[in-house]
Formats: sequence, structure tokens, C-alpha cells
Amino acid sequence: MLKRGAAAALACAICSIPASAQVQFHNNLMPQPAEMTVGSGGLALHSTFAVQLPGVSDARLTGAIDRAVRRIEFAAALRHAGRGVAGTTPLIVKVDHLSAPVQSIDEDESYSLHVTSTGAEIDAPNDLGAMHGLETFVQLVQPDGSGYVIPAVTIHDTPRFRWRGLMIDCGRHFEPVSVIKRTLDGMAAVKLNVFHWHLTEDQGFRMQSHVYPKLTELGFDGLFYTQEQAKEIVAYARARGIRVVPEFEMPGHSTAWLVAYPELASGTTPTEIRREFGVSNTAIDPTRDATYVFIDRFLTEMSTIFPDAYVHIGGDETPAPDWKTNPRILAFMKAHHLKDNEALQAYFNSRVLKILTRLHKHMMGWDEILTPTLPKDIVVQSWRGEASLSKGAKEGYAGILSAPYYLDGMKPAGVHYLADPIPSGSDLTPAEQKLILGGEVCMWGEQLDARTIDSRIWPRTAAIAERFWSPANVRDVNDMYRRLIPVSIELEGLGLTHISYEDAALRNLAGTENIDVLRTFASVFEPVPFHDRYQGQHTDQLTPLDGFVDAVRPDPPSRHNFELAVTRLLANPKEDTADRVALDAWFKQLANVVPQVQQQFPLSPRLAVVSTRAAQLTELTAMGQQALAYLAKGEKAPADWTTEQTNKLDEIKKPSALIRFTILDGMNELIQAASGVGQPQTTGSK
Amino acid sequence: MLKRGAAAALACAICSIPASAQVQFHNNLMPQPAEMTVGSGGLALHSTFAVQLPGVSDARLTGAIDRAVRRIEFAAALRHAGRGVAGTTPLIVKVDHLSAPVQSIDEDESYSLHVTSTGAEIDAPNDLGAMHGLETFVQLVQPDGSGYVIPAVTIHDTPRFRWRGLMIDCGRHFEPVSVIKRTLDGMAAVKLNVFHWHLTEDQGFRMQSHVYPKLTELGFDGLFYTQEQAKEIVAYARARGIRVVPEFEMPGHSTAWLVAYPELASGTTPTEIRREFGVSNTAIDPTRDATYVFIDRFLTEMSTIFPDAYVHIGGDETPAPDWKTNPRILAFMKAHHLKDNEALQAYFNSRVLKILTRLHKHMMGWDEILTPTLPKDIVVQSWRGEASLSKGAKEGYAGILSAPYYLDGMKPAGVHYLADPIPSGSDLTPAEQKLILGGEVCMWGEQLDARTIDSRIWPRTAAIAERFWSPANVRDVNDMYRRLIPVSIELEGLGLTHISYEDAALRNLAGTENIDVLRTFASVFEPVPFHDRYQGQHTDQLTPLDGFVDAVRPDPPSRHNFELAVTRLLANPKEDTADRVALDAWFKQLANVVPQVQQQFPLSPRLAVVSTRAAQLTELTAMGQQALAYLAKGEKAPADWTTEQTNKLDEIKKPSALIRFTILDGMNELIQAASGVGQPQTTGSK
Repeated sequence: MLKRGAAAALACAICSIPASAQVQFHNNLMPQPAEMTVGSGGLALHSTFAVQLPGVSDARLTGAIDRAVRRIEFAAALRHAGRGVAGTTPLIVKVDHLSAPVQSIDEDESYSLHVTSTGAEIDAPNDLGAMHGLETFVQLVQPDGSGYVIPAVTIHDTPRFRWRGLMIDCGRHFEPVSVIKRTLDGMAAVKLNVFHWHLTEDQGFRMQSHVYPKLTELGFDGLFYTQEQAKEIVAYARARGIRVVPEFEMPGHSTAWLVAYPELASGTTPTEIRREFGVSNTAIDPTRDATYVFIDRFLTEMSTIFPDAYVHIGGDETPAPDWKTNPRILAFMKAHHLKDNEALQAYFNSRVLKILTRLHKHMMGWDEILTPTLPKDIVVQSWRGEASLSKGAKEGYAGILSAPYYLDGMKPAGVHYLADPIPSGSDLTPAEQKLILGGEVCMWGEQLDARTIDSRIWPRTAAIAERFWSPANVRDVNDMYRRLIPVSIELEGLGLTHISYEDAALRNLAGTENIDVLRTFASVFEPVPFHDRYQGQHTDQLTPLDGFVDAVRPDPPSRHNFELAVTRLLANPKEDTADRVALDAWFKQLANVVPQVQQQFPLSPRLAVVSTRAAQLTELTAMGQQALAYLAKGEKAPADWTTEQTNKLDEIKKPSALIRFTILDGMNELIQAASGVGQPQTTGSK
Repeated sequence: MLKRGAAAALACAICSIPASAQVQFHNNLMPQPAEMTVGSGGLALHSTFAVQLPGVSDARLTGAIDRAVRRIEFAAALRHAGRGVAGTTPLIVKVDHLSAPVQSIDEDESYSLHVTSTGAEIDAPNDLGAMHGLETFVQLVQPDGSGYVIPAVTIHDTPRFRWRGLMIDCGRHFEPVSVIKRTLDGMAAVKLNVFHWHLTEDQGFRMQSHVYPKLTELGFDGLFYTQEQAKEIVAYARARGIRVVPEFEMPGHSTAWLVAYPELASGTTPTEIRREFGVSNTAIDPTRDATYVFIDRFLTEMSTIFPDAYVHIGGDETPAPDWKTNPRILAFMKAHHLKDNEALQAYFNSRVLKILTRLHKHMMGWDEILTPTLPKDIVVQSWRGEASLSKGAKEGYAGILSAPYYLDGMKPAGVHYLADPIPSGSDLTPAEQKLILGGEVCMWGEQLDARTIDSRIWPRTAAIAERFWSPANVRDVNDMYRRLIPVSIELEGLGLTHISYEDAALRNLAGTENIDVLRTFASVFEPVPFHDRYQGQHTDQLTPLDGFVDAVRPDPPSRHNFELAVTRLLANPKEDTADRVALDAWFKQLANVVPQVQQQFPLSPRLAVVSTRAAQLTELTAMGQQALAYLAKGEKAPADWTTEQTNKLDEIKKPSALIRFTILDGMNELIQAASGVGQPQTTGSK
């Protein structure tokens, strides 16, 4: 009994437990504010809490206040006071002027927040800034003794970048309105301000057009957004301080356009939407005037739904072999002195730009649209990387960075976190740096559905949101991971399912509610990156996303917790008994669950695909325990042992079941340390 | 290490683990079909699986097929074939004729399902029956070796009752459209066919009226369904074979009507909606013609949104003190020879009935509407119980039973399950029995929000749905609980959160993702019944539903699993070593988590409210272990010990933290057995 209790308690030693909450301020804010001074004490929260609005206000601001108040009441177990109730403990929200009806990229998003033991005040030039201040205020709620408080702080906050976006690809897999809404709630909580809505793909056209109804009527599985729904989402986003930039991919990634309206095609005319992924050969014909009449009428219709000043036309990945073989197109190119496909696409872009300009819209597109013929008011979204973005800035083009923020690469939050739109060594002039508007997280849709999308986006996107908002020198990965836990729980409270879906999927896989051992087993796995899964499974739009790979989360807590414990241990391999015992207990716990998971394989073929990984987990835990034993004895492991373990690790790194272990880096550090190869480590962050 | 492994494995002995899946048929169906013959072997599911529709079909049926196919593909890891793909392993769905545009209470819901090793066929007189057959087909998917099969079966199925409903009170707390939709998905999965939508209450008017816009404009927190949303829900329900019966409460429960239109009031004119619960004194004035003009115009408008043949007018709990004091009303009563409030309400009902008749609607109401002046085509919903319902039937009135299916009573599924609309000892004639149309589960909204509603409804409602559908002699509680596990997981797969929300709430309460010990601790608690919570907390509409009581689920698996293990043990107290060891290990596990949970109390005042319960859990586990020890020794416990434990149990039964233990009945059995008081028990079901 003692042993069991001890093991359970020690297993927690590698997990994160909140520190004692008495009195002192816990900085759980994400993103971190630009400036903060911490006072002593704080504002105790009671049912007398109420909001006063001495400045201007409108329905957007009062709606945001209502939502914030409900979250505070929920967090602090306060009875709901209702709007307009005169409380004795006020939060004063003072706004100078209301924002314009359509949120602009130049909008002032700053706010100040001042909390004392008697009250709190948010001051902002406009309601958008005040809404950011409210999100900060909600994150400040913390326990204190028998109740809850807002610690005394003074914050002056403003974002580092103006463009802080999340792109979701709803073309390859459709995402229901409810998913988009809860994602917008999450975005607002971490102060993101652009929802880039990727609405068309080879695999589906998701936006209803009344002018061209066949776009959603023909063969897209009936999965699209009605205009009413799109307007509802635009309004929902605006209510949360988020712009909606729609993307209609052209001239490539256009199979869905061409299935509906084959007369737009350059030659290849698909008869049905594409189920497989990858770059397609279809392209809209840039040489016919009818093409531009079509695009003009379509974009004019869309401008009644999407009020934002920017429209994204995609523009990437257009091999368009038809442009090299269709005699009519070749003749056109010759007549217009267009020497190659790139020149033809630049011509296309310039024609579309005219349409957008008439509609008072700025054009936005991926790297490929950047050609010297285009004016300087376009915005380039870089999927090629920071160097490509910098090059654009030097030529005078505004841009945003996306390459390091591709979530389907399944990288740890810490890796995304350290990637900066303007790295510290940047050679851009201050003027050029201003052209770097910010960045966008990209959630591509090949291997996503409505069940799995949340865990792919969150909580990693919260860490990236901090990169876009907070000062450049906020770069402590360990501290980010510490704060990622409360923000992740806050996001779950908003209705996101990024934590809870894993268990639901495991129950479904195992056919039982009793998943204690399976949960422990799953905790050390994560999905492989997009390309690895694509190669291993040949995923297409019809693949059921019901596997173990779909259940587990990218960058689950096990990686960082394990690496932290290893780092602490290796800094002090002989003295740090606590971490050694905790790690040993954790390895035992993992080893113990393996046979119990293996017993479930005959009952679930969908689960049994991880059988190789199960056997490997047994090997890994043995390896870890042996390494700990060598370290405990202060004895260098024999070379044979090291070679054997290294070989095993190499074997374990090979593809299997579309999942990978989260603990291999930490394990390798342990082995190297036990072999006397490495010095005591102090990194621990990835 | 061995000990820990043993304990973990043994702890599972009181949990449910699915049996081996090789070859043989596992009857996981819920509800059980009327007739079923099981063959040998089954239909192996491969990507060649496809549906053929040789009979009639329409968009509703093909939509239902698409959804069923996606669920089968997900369950069996099949690549999606797409509609109309010619597969070599067909499911033939043969329908004789399409259902009427508005689903009727008399609609034939029967179907046959025949599965062999080469194919499957669903035959039904209409698409509604075929849709039920599809739900059965989905539930039949089971693992077999390395893949999935549909076992060979022949089923002839038809429901026992025509009216199988779920009422949700969206008046006291609003539930978003997404919650209603996922609930409808769950209802269809267990073959419920009526969604009774309780739309008005003293606490809010939830249905938009363009004729009387103030009904939703004045003071209802902006939480209501637009007409578009209501139509969307009606269409969503119809697509799943579910009728929508709207309820507009009158003349009582009418504060929300009267806040908007005080001219309707009998005297007392509220100025704002009621935040507290319980019966109010407000009542619509039945004596003014203007009242009926209002109701006529309102119901005429509603009939354009709700096509169902039934409209529920509530009619319950109308003390209406104004009717006893308002001179004008008293004069009216005298002039019309109405001797008391009941007679006046009967007069009101007869006037409303005329309006509904003109709209070709049947009137429905709670017990109170049943007065001899009303014609026989009304339907009475009995909240008073089966005797009241039978009395109505003897007088020739049709009715449905609700009293035993009040989910806020927090009763175990097994208790609800055994309550029958026509109990076996019923003295009703066959003709009178036909007037018992069925039953309705009632989910009242006082202590609910969008987060907690799922676990209050599911999976208990699945067990009640079986009562309404399956033959009366399907009453094996243990078998029901066995089947409740897979159906609960199926429901979770449809997007319901009845299992997963508990963990999300615990993470929120504890402020950490690391809830292993808290989850174990929480597993033996459930919310107290509505009345107990109401008395303990004085819950009103503004109470934050963020406590431990809101996290835990009614009738969690621990109760039934514990009682099963105790029953097995007490049948064989000396020989059943396995159960004794398992129970002992489980008590130890529970005892071990208590101090770890207690450590978290200073960090979370919201969690710390359960501190008394935590101490009691320590007492209970000690008590259980001592009882096991007496039983193991075959030694009768001393009388002092028994008295002491019984006193402790009495103490533990007292209110604390709005939660109660699930293990008290089982524990009492153990204590009585150890004291030699009881004989070996064989009940185990509640």
C-alpha cells in the first residue's frame, strides 16, 4: 500500500502541479503584456463585483463585458450579478471612442489595466483595446485562501505586430460553424485578430454563391457555408475583435471551381472534386475575358459578405501544364509577350487586382504572387519562410510570416514559439521592419476533421499568439510551457475540446469507459508530421480519421515534463534523488500498463495497429531504468550497452502506426549521460 | 512493482471490460429489438461496403444513409466509399413508400433487418422505419479478429409505444442550438421520436415572435431562438425521424409573457423575469377577450414554424392568487358560473382549445388540464404518475407518462429503466392501454447549463428509450447496464460530452491537466437530487454552475460496478477471493488518493468545498476494508463495530457539498454481511 501510494505521488513529480496560491502574484498571462508592474495584495472577488462603463460603449463592448463577467463568475464561483448592477467592487471600463464598423489593420489595440485592493480600471482608446484588456483581466483571476482575487497590477499593453492570424483550411475537410465559433473564442482569449478562412480547394468549394450556385451544388458532399452562416461568423468574429479574411484560391488549387464551371478551365476539365491531396494540374484560364467577368461578379458578391479590406487569392502551387500545351493559351502568351507560366500568372494577378481595387480591397496571396509588376499595397503571406518575407520587405512589399507556424508539422510548441517574424539578427531597416505586419498560424486540412482539429490547433497556437503579441525578448520556453497549462484549461473552458477529445477517442477505440491504462500508454505518443502520415497512409479526403494517431495530441505534456525532469537530474545526477526516483517510478508505471494495453488488442483491431509501439515502450522503459541505475551508482555504462541502446532508439525512430514517441530526445540524453558522453545538460527546452 | 501492477490490474476487476470479441455475437443493441434470431458468422466489413437503394428514396433517407455509412466507416476504419459507389458487399435498403412531410404519431416505424455473410438488407414500409433499421445496423458493428463484422442476424422490429419523447426545459436556462442538435443525434441513435421543447418559463421566453417582438426583446438576456434557428431545428429533427412538439406555458409559469405584455396579467404584473425558481403567482388573465386574441395571433404565428400536430400549453402549477382577489375576475367567474380557480382554468383551456382546433392542432398539457369539459383528442402528460395516467385512460383520455423519468431526481438508470408506462399489474383494458401513447423523459433546467446538460441526459435516457421501444419483458437491469457502456460510447462519438465534460470540469476546478487522483476521487460521487441542491444552495438562474457537483455525473459506473462486485462476493463470501482482493485493492486506491486531493484544496477554493466528503471517503474505505477482513475470516463482526459503522453511514448520508457517495448501498450490504445480519445477497441491481 505504501509503495503504491509512493509511486502515485512520485509519478506526479514529472507532471506540473500549480504552486501554492497564497497571497503572491502568479503570472499566468498569455500573451505576456508589454509592460507590467506588480503591486502587493489584490482585489478580492465577491458577488459585489460589477462593471461600470463611464465612457462610450456599444453592443459589441457590452457583449464582451457580459462574456468576460460570466467567465470571471465561473472561475471565482460568484453568483451572476447581471449587467448594470451597482456593485461595490467595480471594474471600470473607460473607452475613449468606438471602433470603426469594419476593423482595420491600423486600429489601436492598446489598453491599460490598473488593479488595486479596492477596484480595477481598464482604459483604452477604443473598444477593441478594452476587449483585450478584459481578456487579460480574466486571466488574472487566481485563488487566494478561501476565495479568489485579481492581484494588484498595473499593465500598459500593446501588440508588437498588427496582423496576428490563424488560417484554417476548410476546403480539404469541411469544419462546421460550431467549430469555427469555438475557435474564434479561443483566438480572442489569446488576442489573435485575424481569422484567415481558406474556403476553396481542389477538394471542395465551401462558400455559397447565389450568382454561381453550381459552385456548391455540384459534388461537394453538401458541405459548405451558406451566406447566412458566413455572415454569422463574420459578426461573431467582429464581436471578438477578429477580422475575417476570406481566401478564394486562384488560378491553381481550383478543381472545385472547374467542376462547377468547366468553361473556366485552361484545358484539363475535372468532372469531380479531387479526393487525393497534393498539387493538382488544374488551373483557371487566365487568357479569356470571360474568366475575369466571372471573377468580377463572384468577388463583387463576396464583398457583400466579407467587409474586410483584404481578400486572399491564394496563388500558390500552380504548375498548370495546360499553359505549356494549349495552343490558344500559347498564342495569347506570345501576343502579350508573356514568356512563361510565371509571367502569365502575374498577368492574371494584375487583372484580378484591378477587380479588387474597384471593390476597394487589398490583394493578398502566397509568396508566388510577389512579382515586380504588382503595386506595393498587396500583402504577401510567406509559406517559404522568413528569408523570402525579408526579401519582399526589402522590395517594399508588406508581408506576414507563416512558414514556421504550420501546425501539421506536429512540432512542439517551443519550436514554434522561438520562430520570430523579425529574428533578432534581421538586417531589415526599421522602415522595412514595419512592412512585416506579423504572422499567421496555418492549420491545413488534409488530416483533420471536426473532432481532431482542436487538439491540432490548441494549445500550441496560444504560444504562437504570444510571439505575435508580446515583446521580442519574451522567449523563455520553460516559462511559456508553465503558462501554457492554465491557458490550455482556460481554452477548454471556452468549449474547445483539445484535451478532452483524446480520452473520447480512446474510449471509442477501446470500446470501454475504463481507459486508465490506455490513457497512460497514450500519453507518450503524438501524431507524426503531415508528410510522414501522408507517405505512410496515403491519406485522402475519404480516409476515416479514427485511428490512434487521431486520438493522440501533438506535443502532449509528457515531452516537456520528461525533459524538464531529465534536465534537472543531469544537472545533479548523484544528488537529485527526487527526480531519479520519480523518473524510475514513471518508467515502471509505463512498463506496467503495456501488458494491459496489449490484452485489449484482440478486442479492437483499430487499437491493435500500435502493437509494435507497445513492445517498443517496454524497451524504452527498461532502457530508461538502466540508465538511471548507472547514474545512481555514478558508474559509466559499458560501451556495448550504449551501442545497443542507440541502435534500439534508431529502430524506434522508424515509422510505425503513424505515431511517434514524445520521450526519445529525453531518453537519448539519459543514455548519453549514463555513458558518460555528455556533460550535465541544462537545455531541456526544444 | 509487482504490488503496484497487481493493484492496478485488480482495480479493473470491478470495472467493465468488454468480453473477447472472437466470432460470437455480442448483443450490444439498445433498445433491444422486438424479435431477433442470431445466425452464425457475419458480414465482414471492407472498403467494398456500399449501400444500394432499389426502392423509393428521398433526401431524408439518403442523408440518413450517408450519416450511418460515415459512422460505420469510422467504427470499422473503412475508407469512405461515397454515395452511389457500387460495392461488392451491399447493404440494400428497400423502402415501400415515403413518409408524409409531417411525421405523424400513427406512422409505421417498423423495419426488418437481415444480415448474412454476403450482404445485408433493411426492409421497411417507409423511410422512417428504414432509418431505425440503420441505427440498429450501426450498433451491430463489432470487432472480429483483425477486422470488423456485422454478425448474421434476422431482426423484425417495431416499437412498443408510439410516443417516445425527451423534454428539455430551455426556459430556466437557455441551451444553444448546437446542444439541441447533438441531443437530437443522440435521440435518433436510441430511437426516440419526440423532442418536446419547453420554450417559455417564468425565467425566460426563448422563442422569437415577429408578431409580439417584446416577448424576446425585454429583459431575457438576449438568449432566445430566432425563427430561422427554430426552423433549422425542426428540419434537423425531421431528418432524424423526430417530431418537435413546442410548449408554450399558459396560464401559469408565465412571468416572461407578462414582463413583455403586462396587459395580459391577472393582476400581479412583474417588471422583470424571475431569477429564482419554484412556482410563481403570475398568471395570464383568462377573463379578457384580448387575451385570446393575443394567444390566437401568437399560436397562429408559431404554427408556421412548428408543423407538428400537437402543441403543448403547459397548464401546470397555476396557484393564481389574483383569481381569488381581483374583483373583475371574481365577477367574471360569478357570471360564468365558474366556482373556483380550477373551473376558471378549464374555461381558459377550452378557449385555447378552440384556437388550436382552428389551427388543426391537438392540445397537450400536464395533468392539470384534464377536466371533464375537454374533448377526448387532447393528450395529457403525467407528471403526477402512472396512477393519474391510468385514471385518465379510464376516462378515455390519451396520455404519456413522465413522472418516473425526471432526470433531475438523479436516480440511477436502473430505477428509471424499471418504471413502465403500463406496469405488469395494470388493470387497464386493452382498449384503455392503447390510450397510453408512451412516455417522455423530462430534463428540467434549473441546475443545467450547456456544459452540464449532456451528462444529466445521457446515458440514462438511453435506458429509458429502451423501456419505450422494447417489449415489456426486457427488464434485466444488469444486462441493461452492460449494454449501456457501448451505447454511451456511441453517443459520445456523435458529439455528446456526457463522459468527457467531467474531466474538463475537474481540470478547471484544479487548475491542472494532471487530474489522475482527482478523477479517481470524483468517480464515487454524484450530484444530489434537484430538491436537495435547491435546499442546500438556493440555486437560482444566476448561480454559477461551476462546482464539483456540476462536474460529477449522475449514476456513474462506480455504483453499478461496486454493487455487482459486492453481490458476487456476498453470494460466496469465503470462496470468492478474486472479488475480495479486487475490492480491497480498490478501497486502498481510493484511500490513497484522498491525501493527494486534500493537498489541492488550498489551491482551489472551489474544490475545497468537498473537504468533508474527502474525510468521509477515508472512513468509508476503512470501513469497507474492515468488512472484507471479517468476511475473509468468516468471523462475525462485533455488534459495537456494526453500530459504529451504521452511525458513520448515517452521518455520511447527511448533506455536504451538494454531492453524495455512489457506494453507500453497496457498503451497507458489506457491513450487514460482515455483521452476519443479512443473508448472502443476490440483488445487486437498483
